[in-house]
Amino acid sequence: MLDATLTETDAQASLRRSEADTPSSLVMRFGTDAPLTLDAGPAIAPWQIAYQTYGELNADRSNAILICHALTGDQHVASTNPVTGKPGWWTLMVGPGKPIDTDRFFVICSNVLGGCLGTTGPASTNPETGRPYGLDLPVVTIADMVRAQAMLVTSLGIEQLFAVVGGSMGGMQALQWAASYPDRVFSTIAIATSYRHSSQNIAFHEVGRQAVMADPDWCGGRYLEAGRNPKKGLAVARMAAHITYMSDRSLHQKFGRNLQDRDALAFGFDADFQIESYLRHQGMTFVDRFDANSYLYVTRATDYFDLAADHGGVLANVFKGTKTRFCVLSFTSDWLYPTSESRAVVHALNAAGAPVSFVEIDSDRGHDSFLLDIPEQYRIVRGFLTGAARARGIAGPAAEDKP
Amino acid sequence: MLDATLTETDAQASLRRSEADTPSSLVMRFGTDAPLTLDAGPAIAPWQIAYQTYGELNADRSNAILICHALTGDQHVASTNPVTGKPGWWTLMVGPGKPIDTDRFFVICSNVLGGCLGTTGPASTNPETGRPYGLDLPVVTIADMVRAQAMLVTSLGIEQLFAVVGGSMGGMQALQWAASYPDRVFSTIAIATSYRHSSQNIAFHEVGRQAVMADPDWCGGRYLEAGRNPKKGLAVARMAAHITYMSDRSLHQKFGRNLQDRDALAFGFDADFQIESYLRHQGMTFVDRFDANSYLYVTRATDYFDLAADHGGVLANVFKGTKTRFCVLSFTSDWLYPTSESRAVVHALNAAGAPVSFVEIDSDRGHDSFLLDIPEQYRIVRGFLTGAARARGIAGPAAEDKP
Repeated sequence: MLDATLTETDAQASLRRSEADTPSSLVMRFGTDAPLTLDAGPAIAPWQIAYQTYGELNADRSNAILICHALTGDQHVASTNPVTGKPGWWTLMVGPGKPIDTDRFFVICSNVLGGCLGTTGPASTNPETGRPYGLDLPVVTIADMVRAQAMLVTSLGIEQLFAVVGGSMGGMQALQWAASYPDRVFSTIAIATSYRHSSQNIAFHEVGRQAVMADPDWCGGRYLEAGRNPKKGLAVARMAAHITYMSDRSLHQKFGRNLQDRDALAFGFDADFQIESYLRHQGMTFVDRFDANSYLYVTRATDYFDLAADHGGVLANVFKGTKTRFCVLSFTSDWLYPTSESRAVVHALNAAGAPVSFVEIDSDRGHDSFLLDIPEQYRIVRGFLTGAARARGIAGPAAEDKP
Repeated sequence: MLDATLTETDAQASLRRSEADTPSSLVMRFGTDAPLTLDAGPAIAPWQIAYQTYGELNADRSNAILICHALTGDQHVASTNPVTGKPGWWTLMVGPGKPIDTDRFFVICSNVLGGCLGTTGPASTNPETGRPYGLDLPVVTIADMVRAQAMLVTSLGIEQLFAVVGGSMGGMQALQWAASYPDRVFSTIAIATSYRHSSQNIAFHEVGRQAVMADPDWCGGRYLEAGRNPKKGLAVARMAAHITYMSDRSLHQKFGRNLQDRDALAFGFDADFQIESYLRHQGMTFVDRFDANSYLYVTRATDYFDLAADHGGVLANVFKGTKTRFCVLSFTSDWLYPTSESRAVVHALNAAGAPVSFVEIDSDRGHDSFLLDIPEQYRIVRGFLTGAARARGIAGPAAEDKP
């Protein structure tokens, strides 16, 4: 059951909230009377969305910020991940006194549709069969993810979000929010992202999917019932993807041709170089926290992402008449979502007459820069939100309130 | 048996030449009295090297050009590949009247050590066990490949090569020839290559190797005896590698987000986009022509390549006192072996006082540019070889001989 306050503000009596089956996460359950419509055609019901919140919603419910996570991220943006025991993935950005200041804003972060950390995904039970969905879950899109989030936000009694913020696939969701629900988004911050997945990015994702599906333990997607797990294929997929998250230069600086635990080449196929050992570690730790089928779904969602496709291929038409204010950030060494793609978003926003701040941040550290300690990003987000909060009339923190 | 002419010029009476087991290729066999020393330590014997020749060796044996093939290439540089039935891989470069003019030069191209098209590799029989080597073949290096080629060249009665030419891993061999045998190389053309494998390149190769080794049909490298073939893993490896051979821009121009044989997204995991279908095709056709263990060996050889490592890390020292003349070519959109790496080679050659021509060729088509119809490359190679041939006193083609 929803707690009393939220039930009072929300007409959807069918919504059920439970913390039972995903420890450390809140879960909003939607029944058969609140199906989730999908771009693929069919709707799913029942379904659920797992999320975390930080800070307090203010009296006029105007200070809510939705944070959208990246491909294999999760809702634990600023608190310990219960699966890995590691700190939240964006504690540099979100927390008391941080750029997204939880002393000031009510922060929501939910696990994406198709994910594997509490929100309905391919490992969830298919109500029609009583078995895990596997590939019977319809393919989901970024717009589907956002539609699910919108139902969560409504259920939390929030009409308009003060901001939607995300990097990478999270940035796609942030842009999709502004496109799908322009009146429900006061401001949008899209970082290290694009308006559509490039051919090269689709290619890398396809390699990853083929690696998963080539693993005999994948069992045509039915590995859960078979008591198996396509760990080797998923690890290879992660290794390939991980290379694209870093830059040539950052790999060179971090590893170069340094050897692993030895003075000379071993003339074998074990991990000889540090970079090999590092990649293997990335692959192995990933499979302990992520579901292989979910990997297929989230990669497919990003491949399908093409914001202009439904607007005659004209990106500016997506944002025509929008009142949302935008902040777009890119990083010089990000070759997965290069600055040129952010620039295309900015051009479209300008053509649509939308207010937009754009900064290309100098960084050697590739796509993952948005998760790292690169102060300029945090300064810009803080500044943008401070300005937007003034415009929205959100009370500032104690220091800002002083005359 | 060697043919009479070569036997007369070569003291190694143990050499045996045979066309028996590799149709359409010449094969030079070396017996137990002509072992091949390897950087890994052990020597192998007997061993063999498969090769092709084009054109005629002139009277003073001064017009021989060795062409070194890339990672998964072969000796069929300018004639039909008997396995695939396809034309030679560099017919734009090599042939009558072509930049490497077989009316003028005697061209040799051999399959690399560790390969799978006739030269000793992991699929060859280990004389100690009577079984295929598998991973019992010592890991080979670029220097080992070149050492094997040098024994072939000697056996063909050639003391000094007029030129050694190669792109990608072939370029590494060309540079290694100049380093290992400076007096035996009059000129060197190194295209789209590097003096050492970068961390990022090692990373991509490691992904490929892990994909192969994750395939249960790999059987710890003993798939030949088990009557199996790790095709799925090798296909994934090839797919990942293939992305690195093209540029983001060329993928965009060739495929963009075009759908495969349909008007709308299929909302599934079959090949929806043309780029997916293309990559799958690349993977599937590759496994029909290439041996999985060979893939491990040739990728390892390039990973191990570091020309300066034996010279105190100073690349200029590698070429100190060389009399070889060099031509170095790179392509603007090659992100596998970016121009910066060619430039480092050129700087080192300049520091060593070597004559060197360097051109960065404008091309959108990524690393594979060196195999494609980009006229500038062919003009430059023709010009460089024409000048070098004059300097070497090699008679020109009829047209050039005219006053």
